[in-house]
Amino acid sequence: MTGDPHADREPAGPPKSVLARGLTLLDAFGADEELRLADLAARTGLPKPTTHRLLAELVAWGGVERTGTGYRLGTTLFRLGQRVTRHQRLRTAAMPYLEDLYESTRENVHLAVPDGVDTLFIEKLAGRASTPILSGVGGTLPGYCTATGKLFLALDGDRMRSLLSGASGGLQRFTARTIVSPRRLYEDLSETAGRGYGINLGEAEDGVVAVAAPVRDATGEVIAAISVTGYVRRLDLRRLTPVVRTAARGLTAQLGVRAR
Amino acid sequence: MTGDPHADREPAGPPKSVLARGLTLLDAFGADEELRLADLAARTGLPKPTTHRLLAELVAWGGVERTGTGYRLGTTLFRLGQRVTRHQRLRTAAMPYLEDLYESTRENVHLAVPDGVDTLFIEKLAGRASTPILSGVGGTLPGYCTATGKLFLALDGDRMRSLLSGASGGLQRFTARTIVSPRRLYEDLSETAGRGYGINLGEAEDGVVAVAAPVRDATGEVIAAISVTGYVRRLDLRRLTPVVRTAARGLTAQLGVRAR
Repeated sequence: MTGDPHADREPAGPPKSVLARGLTLLDAFGADEELRLADLAARTGLPKPTTHRLLAELVAWGGVERTGTGYRLGTTLFRLGQRVTRHQRLRTAAMPYLEDLYESTRENVHLAVPDGVDTLFIEKLAGRASTPILSGVGGTLPGYCTATGKLFLALDGDRMRSLLSGASGGLQRFTARTIVSPRRLYEDLSETAGRGYGINLGEAEDGVVAVAAPVRDATGEVIAAISVTGYVRRLDLRRLTPVVRTAARGLTAQLGVRAR
Repeated sequence: MTGDPHADREPAGPPKSVLARGLTLLDAFGADEELRLADLAARTGLPKPTTHRLLAELVAWGGVERTGTGYRLGTTLFRLGQRVTRHQRLRTAAMPYLEDLYESTRENVHLAVPDGVDTLFIEKLAGRASTPILSGVGGTLPGYCTATGKLFLALDGDRMRSLLSGASGGLQRFTARTIVSPRRLYEDLSETAGRGYGINLGEAEDGVVAVAAPVRDATGEVIAAISVTGYVRRLDLRRLTPVVRTAARGLTAQLGVRAR
């Protein structure tokens, strides 16, 4: 690994309104569990008294909790996050298919949705025998080096152009196999679109491969992907691919029926 | 069912500061997937122009998304919610134990944490053969009629007193077996404390039973519970109890080792 695909986005700019300042404080936690007032003031560029006052409001709301030495994100945010109902409904509908895949592979099973040019994991099943990998629920990984992400890029021209134009920060190398040439990535994504499923051959983590299949809503739009990820020495992608595709087709059929 | 244990809390009062008003708008979505500007203004008591302006800021932040006809909660909230790191870490550590329980029961397996006098589900595994039940990830159910919730109440005197004093709204009947007498609930919780695990005998949903065992952190504090829930005709609680307790003990031991 030469970079951290979990790196968080920076806030877009200095906060303007009082509401935007409060929201910036929430964003400022990044991947950190706990921060002190001074850290939060430094990260947001807000004066300490302002930071203190806004934090008190966020604590009263429940989105931030006070600890012995600082602040952390709170349960209200967890609960609100789970009310993003299209994710929640998708997750509930997908769970039996994910469980089937887990039971037949004992490997990491993901449900992911597109998030700009990235892939956002909304569920992950893993057992004690599964390959330890980077993905985490609620976390994103770059689309161009993951099976689900390449599928999302391949099946959406706007997303692919946005990435290949370099507007989103370009292609960073994570392993020797990461595709960092725009021309090669374009070819790879064209192949992906042609075959209709995504493959990752150690492009995000050394020795870790994955296969992803698309989940469509009743209009045919790709709204999610299901993938299985594990060590290359454990996964036989040729045998695994039809299994993952069947699961994704089952979920697609069910979503179509429900939407009618 | 004579009531809805999923009923959402009302906002604490009329919003004061600009930040609090914005946050009230987030809360106002409740369990609804999509609301129009007029609905949100009505629910929060904010003037429509104010509502419109604050929504624009929440949309810019990503916590709210515009749809064709209104607004819905957005991906930024989902992502922030998953950064409530103690839940996320607990969830990741628990997953192998939850998977073991699912595989041996094929029933609903929960990981829950206390949330005031309620129980908040932070993970739920279920397959196509599992009993369809009310619980959902990110959702709460009243503590006094659930196996995890009764365990949390039984093991925390403050929580139990808060509930029994009626300060939190009292005891609502959901089934003929819901314990709505404070005296009987006190006895039931005392028994629960004595035996060290929680039992629900159709107290939240007719014919649905559960057993819950406590998960403790390195200091011995009960921070979560693991439960299995399903139709009474399918679950043999006497045989299931040691299985659930063993899983919870395994997770407790692992959390203790990690914290040292």
